[in-house]
Amino acid sequence: MTEPSAANFVNRIFFGYQNTAVLKAALELDVFSAIGSGTLDVAALAKKTDASPRGIAALCDSLVVMGFLAKSSAGFALTPDAAIFLDRNSPACIAGIHEFLAAPEFVAMVFEDPAGAVRRGGAPGLANISPDNPIWIRFARSMGPFMQLDAKLVADHASDPPPRRVLDISASHGLFGLAFGQRFPDCRVTGLDWGAVLAVARENADAAGMGDRYDTIVGSAFEADWGKGYDLVLLPNFLHHFDRAGCMKILHRARAALAPKGKVAIVEWVPNEDRVSPPAPALFAMTMLLSTPSGTTYTGPELSAMLVEAKFQRPDIIPLLPTPLTLVLARAA
Amino acid sequence: MTEPSAANFVNRIFFGYQNTAVLKAALELDVFSAIGSGTLDVAALAKKTDASPRGIAALCDSLVVMGFLAKSSAGFALTPDAAIFLDRNSPACIAGIHEFLAAPEFVAMVFEDPAGAVRRGGAPGLANISPDNPIWIRFARSMGPFMQLDAKLVADHASDPPPRRVLDISASHGLFGLAFGQRFPDCRVTGLDWGAVLAVARENADAAGMGDRYDTIVGSAFEADWGKGYDLVLLPNFLHHFDRAGCMKILHRARAALAPKGKVAIVEWVPNEDRVSPPAPALFAMTMLLSTPSGTTYTGPELSAMLVEAKFQRPDIIPLLPTPLTLVLARAA
Repeated sequence: MTEPSAANFVNRIFFGYQNTAVLKAALELDVFSAIGSGTLDVAALAKKTDASPRGIAALCDSLVVMGFLAKSSAGFALTPDAAIFLDRNSPACIAGIHEFLAAPEFVAMVFEDPAGAVRRGGAPGLANISPDNPIWIRFARSMGPFMQLDAKLVADHASDPPPRRVLDISASHGLFGLAFGQRFPDCRVTGLDWGAVLAVARENADAAGMGDRYDTIVGSAFEADWGKGYDLVLLPNFLHHFDRAGCMKILHRARAALAPKGKVAIVEWVPNEDRVSPPAPALFAMTMLLSTPSGTTYTGPELSAMLVEAKFQRPDIIPLLPTPLTLVLARAA
Repeated sequence: MTEPSAANFVNRIFFGYQNTAVLKAALELDVFSAIGSGTLDVAALAKKTDASPRGIAALCDSLVVMGFLAKSSAGFALTPDAAIFLDRNSPACIAGIHEFLAAPEFVAMVFEDPAGAVRRGGAPGLANISPDNPIWIRFARSMGPFMQLDAKLVADHASDPPPRRVLDISASHGLFGLAFGQRFPDCRVTGLDWGAVLAVARENADAAGMGDRYDTIVGSAFEADWGKGYDLVLLPNFLHHFDRAGCMKILHRARAALAPKGKVAIVEWVPNEDRVSPPAPALFAMTMLLSTPSGTTYTGPELSAMLVEAKFQRPDIIPLLPTPLTLVLARAA
């Protein structure tokens, strides 16, 4: 279609946020699990979700437009992506991420004054949310499943040789560290984060049967004593909250905490050098502009230069496909 | 790409509303007009919009991902759609629609309790917004440019024979009626709406040089006296607020107000019979679920059946391409 059209604009400005609300409603009513592996018509689905047929019909039609359901004369069925990622009976289900990504606090923050954030080059955003704010617990609980695959992929790439001592900075749910602990029975993992959040990491460590090999350090990654002699320091989804100077402080601390030949594993939203691809990492720079005073995304060459400056070798840069994240893995120089 | 991916889900649940905020910021800073027909780099654009280079860089990169800007080594340029629809120097600019479609009241309404609206089959929504609420004035002022092309297209299709008396129900900005008045010097137009909003229609009538041929009726379309003998009754973007019974009341009133051989012209979001295409009219049913007690969209056959029941001939159904709206035009039987 080459004819000029305002459709993209109308879709983005209006249906953009409406579709977030549509998904939120679908997840709260657990429509995807209710449909499951079968096909349900409006009446049956309304009954199963305790909702009105009129509401279910409008909701499911929108979900078809959005690509999460398929519609036939028999009713609605899950698309393959929805079956894998949105049905709570699926082991890969990440449905809960809406509890963080579309949390009322976040919606309010993003709409508060986006033009002001662009004018000023940042926003108080998350900096105004205290370390022990419940939203970080919600992050730890709801984003865990989303990070599970990345955690496995990082362990795939950073296990030669198997690390015996792993430090997980800003551990949150703790999954990135636990992936090593579960793989290697001799591996001891230390999670650093705020106290309230570390309770979630500890729960997950206990559930993984490695509670006796999981240590914690409570506090700020900029101030707490990290300890020494780690084979691997994990920095998952952490550096994007800070400007280059902040990142350098963290990388110097990582370097100092490593044993000889130790490695740092950065997990990040890494855009290409054009900074407009791939889509998700490219858009994530705006997320940081709207939610932090000076956070942003960094390209591969930018991260590489920072690592070399902090006395690491040039890193391997490994996209963690099919997820949007990238592993940047560097050995101490 | 056939590999299962959560990308669509993450994009919709999170970047969906973030991208609305991105466009809102861009329109408030008037980035599109600032770039205009040229190409500007970050420094020049930051200076011109009085914003931080850091903020402009993140904003414009997002706008590239979204398809509104193109990026080159020289800087950012408008895509053809943005040049036509978002640059305030373009006669077809509709940039202002964000003031209504992404108004804080609407964002709050959509996120208030979408699951509850699905459960109950509707929401108090706009019914809670009083007739003289300023949001309807904002609608009249900001949505006018968006409706300008539809108004012209309706006049193209409903001018044989030229109507001499036109009644515009829920006139708002008045543009649908004025399109006939401007085309035919003998045509007299009556706009019906709430008083505060009709002031905008009157302004537009005066600006079109037909203030002396523009009459108004203040009040509810369900209760006010419409008068008689009209050649054309316009129902633009009105029926979707009501259930079938409400629509029938309005169509009976339209039939009674027409001269012999008079016509009714309904302008609506009309989905195909599958109700999941085209995308925008399909999604609009959910808009009505989230914002009205019993409003929805109607298919062509549904509107046709209602018209025949109200003693109209079977209508012509004319998509108003490239806009998302459809004209349903029927003559009194």
